[in-house]
Amino acid sequence: MIRTAILGASGYVGGELLRLLARHPDLRPTRLFGDSKAGQRLGAVHPQLSGAMAEVAVERFSDDALDGIDLVFAALPHGESQKIAGAILERGLKLVDLGADFRLRDPADYARWYGEPHAAPALIERFAYGIPELHRDAIRSAQAVAAAGCYPTATILAVKPLVDAGLIDPDSLIVDAASGVSGAGRAVKEGTAFNTVDGSFAAYGLLNHRHTAEMEQELGATVLFTPHLAPMTRGILATCYAAAAKPMDPDAPLAALRQAYAGEPFVRVSDDPPSTKWVSGSNGAVVTARYDARTGRVVMLGAIDNLGKGAAGQMIQCANLMFGLDETAGLAAEGVYP
Amino acid sequence: MIRTAILGASGYVGGELLRLLARHPDLRPTRLFGDSKAGQRLGAVHPQLSGAMAEVAVERFSDDALDGIDLVFAALPHGESQKIAGAILERGLKLVDLGADFRLRDPADYARWYGEPHAAPALIERFAYGIPELHRDAIRSAQAVAAAGCYPTATILAVKPLVDAGLIDPDSLIVDAASGVSGAGRAVKEGTAFNTVDGSFAAYGLLNHRHTAEMEQELGATVLFTPHLAPMTRGILATCYAAAAKPMDPDAPLAALRQAYAGEPFVRVSDDPPSTKWVSGSNGAVVTARYDARTGRVVMLGAIDNLGKGAAGQMIQCANLMFGLDETAGLAAEGVYP
Amino acid sequence: MIRTAILGASGYVGGELLRLLARHPDLRPTRLFGDSKAGQRLGAVHPQLSGAMAEVAVERFSDDALDGIDLVFAALPHGESQKIAGAILERGLKLVDLGADFRLRDPADYARWYGEPHAAPALIERFAYGIPELHRDAIRSAQAVAAAGCYPTATILAVKPLVDAGLIDPDSLIVDAASGVSGAGRAVKEGTAFNTVDGSFAAYGLLNHRHTAEMEQELGATVLFTPHLAPMTRGILATCYAAAAKPMDPDAPLAALRQAYAGEPFVRVSDDPPSTKWVSGSNGAVVTARYDARTGRVVMLGAIDNLGKGAAGQMIQCANLMFGLDETAGLAAEGVYP
Amino acid sequence: MIRTAILGASGYVGGELLRLLARHPDLRPTRLFGDSKAGQRLGAVHPQLSGAMAEVAVERFSDDALDGIDLVFAALPHGESQKIAGAILERGLKLVDLGADFRLRDPADYARWYGEPHAAPALIERFAYGIPELHRDAIRSAQAVAAAGCYPTATILAVKPLVDAGLIDPDSLIVDAASGVSGAGRAVKEGTAFNTVDGSFAAYGLLNHRHTAEMEQELGATVLFTPHLAPMTRGILATCYAAAAKPMDPDAPLAALRQAYAGEPFVRVSDDPPSTKWVSGSNGAVVTARYDARTGRVVMLGAIDNLGKGAAGQMIQCANLMFGLDETAGLAAEGVYP
Repeated sequence: MIRTAILGASGYVGGELLRLLARHPDLRPTRLFGDSKAGQRLGAVHPQLSGAMAEVAVERFSDDALDGIDLVFAALPHGESQKIAGAILERGLKLVDLGADFRLRDPADYARWYGEPHAAPALIERFAYGIPELHRDAIRSAQAVAAAGCYPTATILAVKPLVDAGLIDPDSLIVDAASGVSGAGRAVKEGTAFNTVDGSFAAYGLLNHRHTAEMEQELGATVLFTPHLAPMTRGILATCYAAAAKPMDPDAPLAALRQAYAGEPFVRVSDDPPSTKWVSGSNGAVVTARYDARTGRVVMLGAIDNLGKGAAGQMIQCANLMFGLDETAGLAAEGVYP
Repeated sequence: MIRTAILGASGYVGGELLRLLARHPDLRPTRLFGDSKAGQRLGAVHPQLSGAMAEVAVERFSDDALDGIDLVFAALPHGESQKIAGAILERGLKLVDLGADFRLRDPADYARWYGEPHAAPALIERFAYGIPELHRDAIRSAQAVAAAGCYPTATILAVKPLVDAGLIDPDSLIVDAASGVSGAGRAVKEGTAFNTVDGSFAAYGLLNHRHTAEMEQELGATVLFTPHLAPMTRGILATCYAAAAKPMDPDAPLAALRQAYAGEPFVRVSDDPPSTKWVSGSNGAVVTARYDARTGRVVMLGAIDNLGKGAAGQMIQCANLMFGLDETAGLAAEGVYP
Repeated sequence: MIRTAILGASGYVGGELLRLLARHPDLRPTRLFGDSKAGQRLGAVHPQLSGAMAEVAVERFSDDALDGIDLVFAALPHGESQKIAGAILERGLKLVDLGADFRLRDPADYARWYGEPHAAPALIERFAYGIPELHRDAIRSAQAVAAAGCYPTATILAVKPLVDAGLIDPDSLIVDAASGVSGAGRAVKEGTAFNTVDGSFAAYGLLNHRHTAEMEQELGATVLFTPHLAPMTRGILATCYAAAAKPMDPDAPLAALRQAYAGEPFVRVSDDPPSTKWVSGSNGAVVTARYDARTGRVVMLGAIDNLGKGAAGQMIQCANLMFGLDETAGLAAEGVYP
Repeated sequence: MIRTAILGASGYVGGELLRLLARHPDLRPTRLFGDSKAGQRLGAVHPQLSGAMAEVAVERFSDDALDGIDLVFAALPHGESQKIAGAILERGLKLVDLGADFRLRDPADYARWYGEPHAAPALIERFAYGIPELHRDAIRSAQAVAAAGCYPTATILAVKPLVDAGLIDPDSLIVDAASGVSGAGRAVKEGTAFNTVDGSFAAYGLLNHRHTAEMEQELGATVLFTPHLAPMTRGILATCYAAAAKPMDPDAPLAALRQAYAGEPFVRVSDDPPSTKWVSGSNGAVVTARYDARTGRVVMLGAIDNLGKGAAGQMIQCANLMFGLDETAGLAAEGVYP
């Protein structure tokens, strides 16, 4: 049994971790921290939980919080895990950070996109970037993993094989993506109220969404990224465009994807454009791509559940690797459909 | 390994069975039948499936279809399993019927509510009624189980303990329930088109919905039942009203529910009125109840996922019992939330 | 031109009034007050507004606020219009109160259901109850109208003709209703967040919703009322149950409705159970009813848009009557469908 | 009174025309044709209709169908109005074609994108392209108007002023758009079933959607267009990308839009990215644009209601122009919000 702590247990990502850990054979949710809901029953915070887990109280983080813990999931607002990662790693614990603090290799990128200097730049190199399909060996041997962002996960899974195969010009990349509302987190605001979102499709964060930096880093690309909010709770679809590096066979984009993901348990290559619903509630991803000879462009699409492959699911997949477990333990590739 | 066949594998209930069996430790989906989609890959029929299961072809039912099979799930239109249940039972197989054919004890009830005589009345007594919390022993020893309907499951779980405790007058029962659209099945029609349902709340089947008969049978009650279609995919909430049998302590209804479901892994008694979303994608159920001294009435509420506890989930729970497995194998009580 | 002021212009009801007044031939929105958004452009508060109206600034209420005004719509939290109604009426202005302050005839009812004594009980008798189909003459001659609540409007329209015709026992009334989320108002809270509501159907306010009092008053009935929140923005469906006063012809309930609403421009009697979507965005209402000889009960259904016939639309209909205008001016009976 | 006929009165566009004509001061819906629903009451076909209009029967088209008619709206599947436009124009009637038959100037384009030769190429030049903001004079003097497609309307309104101002390279245009499900029409199919679409965001028609041709024609551009289906009933958002023709002031894109649409009653230029919901149920459009100096690209966004400004609303706007009426008669710019 791997004794697991969650920091930020009361948010949506915390809740999804708890739902998944309730069925995980090896990871045991042992200490659950969340300052704003400290003292409340988990069942009051996450109404989906039941049984004994619902009766556990959320704790306030304290000095002895991590005694006896093997693994820490940190699902905190950006800037917070920078403050505590050093102490966690010094204790020899494994750390999976679901926030944005350790995704960017270059502290200058963090400063530029997040508007403040990084508080623990020396620790960055100790984190593997948490997409197992692309960094499996690094994750296996890492003490710490930085979760890929939700938009970057959908984008990078769809685009990286084509960059690697030399099929597209990475400096021409446009990423147009839509997210379900859970991607905006649990904080209550008018922009994510039901009445605002129902029947609404809109872009936000024009030109300057922070996930741009991750995409550029992992793809070695220049990216113009436009996120949209769609009237659904879960799911991200990234529709990505790039200039073809050269004329190619119409099957080349799909072939590159199939080669990259052969044997992967969670990434599926589809002939048809995927729906976010195919992977809702799961750790699955679906990608496809097309070459448009008429305009000389390639279109690449990736669909995930932002809370699954885009957050809690993928980080359990990483934790499984870090502890030498079956990579698929506690995870499903099948979406809850319809 | 229990070799399992599904008849009607291409509908929504079939898809949910497949999703759940993909993670079940003991039940192995071995033969998958579905006439209208025979010959197609499962992945084309159920886009949520992935990996090897997606590549399996749907078969047309044939004489040797059940050779080597231990367990049959029949998810067929009503009237169909009457025709084949006899042969299945004669072969000694266990049978879980997800349709309506063997729910009603009295063939005359079937004839009255379904408009045609029952074709195999002698078999009815061999079926246990598939709500484990109320008929666990019968299910354990049965060769065949008839799935409770989705509306009856939500209703009976909320109401039965109060009938048994003598708190309500069963002849005064009104059941007002709302269902997600997946309850209407996969057949394509204008009434379940997105444009029709989005933003719509409406009643249907006024006075004569067939699930009334099941509720009356299991509760020993007279029931006026009004189903509604809500703009959501999954979930049933039954809001039930009855005259109080006598003045009672305000806590009496909740106490009766807590006593009935103490220790149950899938049924939770809640102080607050439950949302269908708390159990979406799971086999969980949540019930609550109130006594209104002002009007002398009791209100009882039950929430389930119509495809989970209302169909595929509950029938896997029954199959687990029939084969002496852990009753919770392959099932979650935690909803996919948000 | 009737110079019109709106108090509470920044809420959803205020926005709907503005949308409708933008096309009204006679009512001119002249002064727009809203304390929390004072100083902001209307277009920033209500993104649906465009053109000149979007550039008008929301004002803070002041002593001279109503100089030159003919008509006041007050869309304020309950308790607020009690404080100012006296001054408005003394100035000789006409007043339409969209809140709950003047709906209940008996100040003791207000105290019981709203938990505080009424601050202006002497004014109550000067308000007509704002359902034109039932109180047209009183509204025509009134200086002030109290808007019927949204749930009461849907309920009373469906039930009142059957009470009047002696078809049902008013002391047996059960009202089970579902509302879209805009009925909860514009205040931001987790219970009305998109992620909470999408895929959710749940009851709330068990036994003690304040609209019960209005229903009982207008119907001369004892009412057990259970409201539900449905995953849609607009719309209310009330499904109402009562014991039949006596056996009756199956057509009797529909006949009573047809007789009551013959020639009404906004209330339609339907053979089929109505959807909220049929009247979404409009001032229409649809009602139907059934007698169930088997259980001796009558089911009555009413559908409206809670912001239309349930609030802003119906109150413009009342204002039209108060000023001797065409009762339908500026209003549509046709829903925005699909 | 302008006596108006609708061909294809039973589809969604037909229903929206009827809803709008019910409140139009000058256009009178006189003859309503729809072969598949011929003989049915309009109220049975369009449940949003009420009053006298609901009692009108849908007619089968016949030889004398257009006697006494002044104006024809044709909302037919593509290929159908080619067969009858000649006869309608010869009678001297005005014709507004809501289908795709007369949008493309070059019959070869029609053949290429629609897969069959045009049956009436000589008539094409008699049709004005139906976006009043760009072709007002031509529409005023035309006998016939071809409705712009829904995606092209949203796209062209957002992009054309920047092409005209020389700010973007038209050969680099990428259009990524999302539509509500009503854009797929009323035919019933699994892809537009509620259970398929709810919680789903997906692309379709990769590389070859027919609206591409219209965008290229009107913008003088090369366009790669990817449409998506969003889980909402109404609305289109087009997010468009092009290479900047040259470095520019950050305000230049918005300035070009403001200059183009100054004084327009239905097109609004917004600083913030628009939501489809702002214009739902209306004839409004909202556009915005940004220059991204970092990547050298321009992003342009346009939001409309696909049934409003994208179909029925815009075509009533055109008809108003064709008959010399107030261009805004019977139309609202304000969306039904929330």
